[in-house]
Amino acid sequence: MTQAPRDWQGKAARRAARKARAATALGPALHGKRVATEALARLLDAVIEPFDRIALEGNNQKQADFLADGLVQLDPARIHDLHMVQSVLALPQHLDVFERGLASRLDFSFSGPQGARLARLVQEQRIAIGAIHTYLELFSRYFIDLSPQVALVAAQSADAEGNLYTGPNTEDTPAIVEATAFSGGLVIAQVNEWVGPGQALPRVDIPGGWVDFVVVAPQPNVIEPLFTRDPAQISEIQVLMAMMAIKGLYAEYGVQRLNHGIGFDTAAIELLLPTYAESLGLKGRIAKHWALNPHPALIPAIEAGWVESIHSFGSELGMEDYVRARSDVFFTGPDGSLRSNRAMCQAAGHYACDLFIGSTLQIDLDGNSSTATRGRIAGFGGAPNMGADARGRRHASPAWLKAGEQARAGRRGAAGTPRGQKLVVQMVETFREHMQPAFVERLDAWTLQEQAGMALPPIMIYGEDVTHILTEEGLANLLLCRSDEEREQAIRGVAGYTPVGLARDARMVENLRDRGVIRRPQDLGIDPRDATRKLLAAHNMRDLVRASGGLYQPPRRFRNW
Amino acid sequence: MTQAPRDWQGKAARRAARKARAATALGPALHGKRVATEALARLLDAVIEPFDRIALEGNNQKQADFLADGLVQLDPARIHDLHMVQSVLALPQHLDVFERGLASRLDFSFSGPQGARLARLVQEQRIAIGAIHTYLELFSRYFIDLSPQVALVAAQSADAEGNLYTGPNTEDTPAIVEATAFSGGLVIAQVNEWVGPGQALPRVDIPGGWVDFVVVAPQPNVIEPLFTRDPAQISEIQVLMAMMAIKGLYAEYGVQRLNHGIGFDTAAIELLLPTYAESLGLKGRIAKHWALNPHPALIPAIEAGWVESIHSFGSELGMEDYVRARSDVFFTGPDGSLRSNRAMCQAAGHYACDLFIGSTLQIDLDGNSSTATRGRIAGFGGAPNMGADARGRRHASPAWLKAGEQARAGRRGAAGTPRGQKLVVQMVETFREHMQPAFVERLDAWTLQEQAGMALPPIMIYGEDVTHILTEEGLANLLLCRSDEEREQAIRGVAGYTPVGLARDARMVENLRDRGVIRRPQDLGIDPRDATRKLLAAHNMRDLVRASGGLYQPPRRFRNW
Repeated sequence: MTQAPRDWQGKAARRAARKARAATALGPALHGKRVATEALARLLDAVIEPFDRIALEGNNQKQADFLADGLVQLDPARIHDLHMVQSVLALPQHLDVFERGLASRLDFSFSGPQGARLARLVQEQRIAIGAIHTYLELFSRYFIDLSPQVALVAAQSADAEGNLYTGPNTEDTPAIVEATAFSGGLVIAQVNEWVGPGQALPRVDIPGGWVDFVVVAPQPNVIEPLFTRDPAQISEIQVLMAMMAIKGLYAEYGVQRLNHGIGFDTAAIELLLPTYAESLGLKGRIAKHWALNPHPALIPAIEAGWVESIHSFGSELGMEDYVRARSDVFFTGPDGSLRSNRAMCQAAGHYACDLFIGSTLQIDLDGNSSTATRGRIAGFGGAPNMGADARGRRHASPAWLKAGEQARAGRRGAAGTPRGQKLVVQMVETFREHMQPAFVERLDAWTLQEQAGMALPPIMIYGEDVTHILTEEGLANLLLCRSDEEREQAIRGVAGYTPVGLARDARMVENLRDRGVIRRPQDLGIDPRDATRKLLAAHNMRDLVRASGGLYQPPRRFRNW
Repeated sequence: MTQAPRDWQGKAARRAARKARAATALGPALHGKRVATEALARLLDAVIEPFDRIALEGNNQKQADFLADGLVQLDPARIHDLHMVQSVLALPQHLDVFERGLASRLDFSFSGPQGARLARLVQEQRIAIGAIHTYLELFSRYFIDLSPQVALVAAQSADAEGNLYTGPNTEDTPAIVEATAFSGGLVIAQVNEWVGPGQALPRVDIPGGWVDFVVVAPQPNVIEPLFTRDPAQISEIQVLMAMMAIKGLYAEYGVQRLNHGIGFDTAAIELLLPTYAESLGLKGRIAKHWALNPHPALIPAIEAGWVESIHSFGSELGMEDYVRARSDVFFTGPDGSLRSNRAMCQAAGHYACDLFIGSTLQIDLDGNSSTATRGRIAGFGGAPNMGADARGRRHASPAWLKAGEQARAGRRGAAGTPRGQKLVVQMVETFREHMQPAFVERLDAWTLQEQAGMALPPIMIYGEDVTHILTEEGLANLLLCRSDEEREQAIRGVAGYTPVGLARDARMVENLRDRGVIRRPQDLGIDPRDATRKLLAAHNMRDLVRASGGLYQPPRRFRNW
């Protein structure tokens, strides 16, 4: 028996070497795991190497902004060709690392406000995009072929052992840290405060043994209230669409477990549960279990007893006290605050929810939809994961079985084998802002694919996975379509006065309506004149605060009364 | 502003009440979180209530057997109608709780050795099965509609704060504990040993704040070596099939990231990598990144430098020292031992792998396959999750793109929109043991559905998701089939001398072969006479030990030299 000559513990050795370099560089600025705030640059310079994969916590809400600042200030002559593997590009620093020549390669999920700048940098060949992922897909790759060498994460507080308390915004942190810490990488955390010896963290979200260095940031980390929608801005067209969603989808299929996308369309649904849906006798029959951030618009429904449980990807600013006081509904720790977890909530959205409803910017005649538009590379976040049929799912529910039956009725062979299907709904007004039609012959995604040299067009949700398209003109049930032509006419049939809608085959559309493939508001027993803002359970932010018993404390920008 | 009259913190109150009852019942047998071993029955009797959902850790390998014993001994006059939500039914106790009248409802993933007894109990109406799930699906429901009131888990050791060290078998524990602890449930852990004051755990796998009670079990918890296959039992037919897999699939598609099912068929592939695949010049081109337990059969390939990384669902007995010494390949902690995590590894298998290859008991003419047979309800474990096309995936790889192109070539509309596809391979000999044909006109799953009153037949992998069927007769590429008839003949064409195979349309099968839909060994340039056991990189258990440099220590039952 001979030992193989190869070194099989190189990762551990390199990790130890990085830590040794840090100890040398930091000197007295390092106490145990604690790094002096002003010594961050020295720490990063000591531990980061060219070509490292770096997971900079870039979440949907929480940002490791101090660590991002530190990263940007490194010397590109020494540190270059970093490969950034982070779910969200939210801050300017997230692209500055590329402009400054520190990083060259990017794998990500969502770029929101940085989408236009990202597209420019890609065109200038200053960023090579590996791929756009859905969140859980990127986390999955952390464990297979994109394990980070260095993770830069954010938490609320830490103790001397490096245990981290994230408070309500746990988000991506567990997935990033676990993948890094157990594959020979280094974990560096910024925290807002330190708890002294003898003091205990409110709870431990990340065990200290998984964390190498902790630095207190000079400012609390940035958190964005992305899921707050002021009811005052909900239009009566959105009320009408929400009524159709409740009657034509939630009641029709008996949807009890669901996820809502972000936006005013779904906020309108949330605000109609305790009013319109209540009047239909639906309480206890629909919308009981949610994979959802703590949306303020859901407060009236929660207060009216509609909601049994909510598991969350992340938190929402201002909802802290409300969540704490409603611990029967939210996942909370012994400290009372929310425990969010994006990886597990995305899994739950994929496998344990019967319906995903969200919005998009463009839909084509095959039902493919995308938020990618020319000159912007926005990414998709969680939508592809939750807006895809979960083909591995094996447990049944009435909603899932009915959707599956509709899709398979009359089919033969493998396509006819009984199976359930997830309800995936795209909810759009026929024209979006600036009178841009939501329905197009050709998605901008195709142009973007050419411009950015992508292997595939960046389609957010594929036509094969969309089951319904809901506009102010009606509800198209694509499950019932039996040919490409029927699908096309079903889509044209709810596309209103857009060019796509005007080019409909009127006879075929009427035939689809007779078959229930297209349902107008009146087909659902909804009189559009009833669709008034009066139906909303809250008309403005102040109403939401009142409904919460004063527990909800909106961020200043939403305090418009 | 008025506070709602409803109590919104009932879960926390009930949790506190349970803990108070435990304190009273245990008296001096409770120190902090530590419960005296002999007081377990009193603890369980005090905290468990009728109709509770109980997550009894029942994993694929690790079993909370002492807690299971305790549960079985409760008084059914007091505690009844428990709803067991556990991934694996491995021990007799897991069904004893039903026979004794303690539990009445079950949601699970896999029942392996208990499958026949489970079927009997269902027929006697002593168990109502909610559903059979794939693992990640069941974990997902823990966060949505099946959150446990009480979790009974197993770990290697604990400290006074309740911090748990799982060692290499972390498995389901993080998902179970997180879902329970943050939804108002109670977490009870059995451990093999206690670390005294002043002693530190090797690492913290579960933070103590998430754990309510810890009890030292009188015996170390049961762990099964499920993934060990003795190379001596690999047949030359399996060698032939493995050669076809390597040449016709791994090389053909350039598969770098993959998962293998359990069994001799895939063990043969693992043992041919450093020999046959090496001779084809495939090193570095295939099979680099794995979602896989530490299979002993992979040792020769690891030693030969084929494998870059392995992330694991659970561990494998005897592989501890080998894993520790190969930390560049495996996910390990600072203590040197494996960190497994079934939830994250299942996500990785779903979203970050290009190929799943496994076996089954029956395949029908639509390509649907199942391990469910009459009189047995076995469940499917991870197969549905990894053996399904990941429709939410958005990152490209050559293997995934090629499979997608083959599936979509010539199609129009939504079905023709370019998209990748996961390779899902069923690898079976045409006859399994006792000369049962693997190919059938009708799956036993249909009979089982009727017997057990299931909403759908328990199909493990659907024909729509299977891309290839591999037998000793050849490789059928279902991606290239364009009709139900073609699919049927492609399946019959590799079904050999089974009745299904004999009923083939010989002309159509030859046509499919001309088109490359069916490929015989000779079509792949493989001479069946070359398929000898000599090609295996290890011929027996002793060879595996030798290849490991003596680091692999097989359990006694495998020490046959």
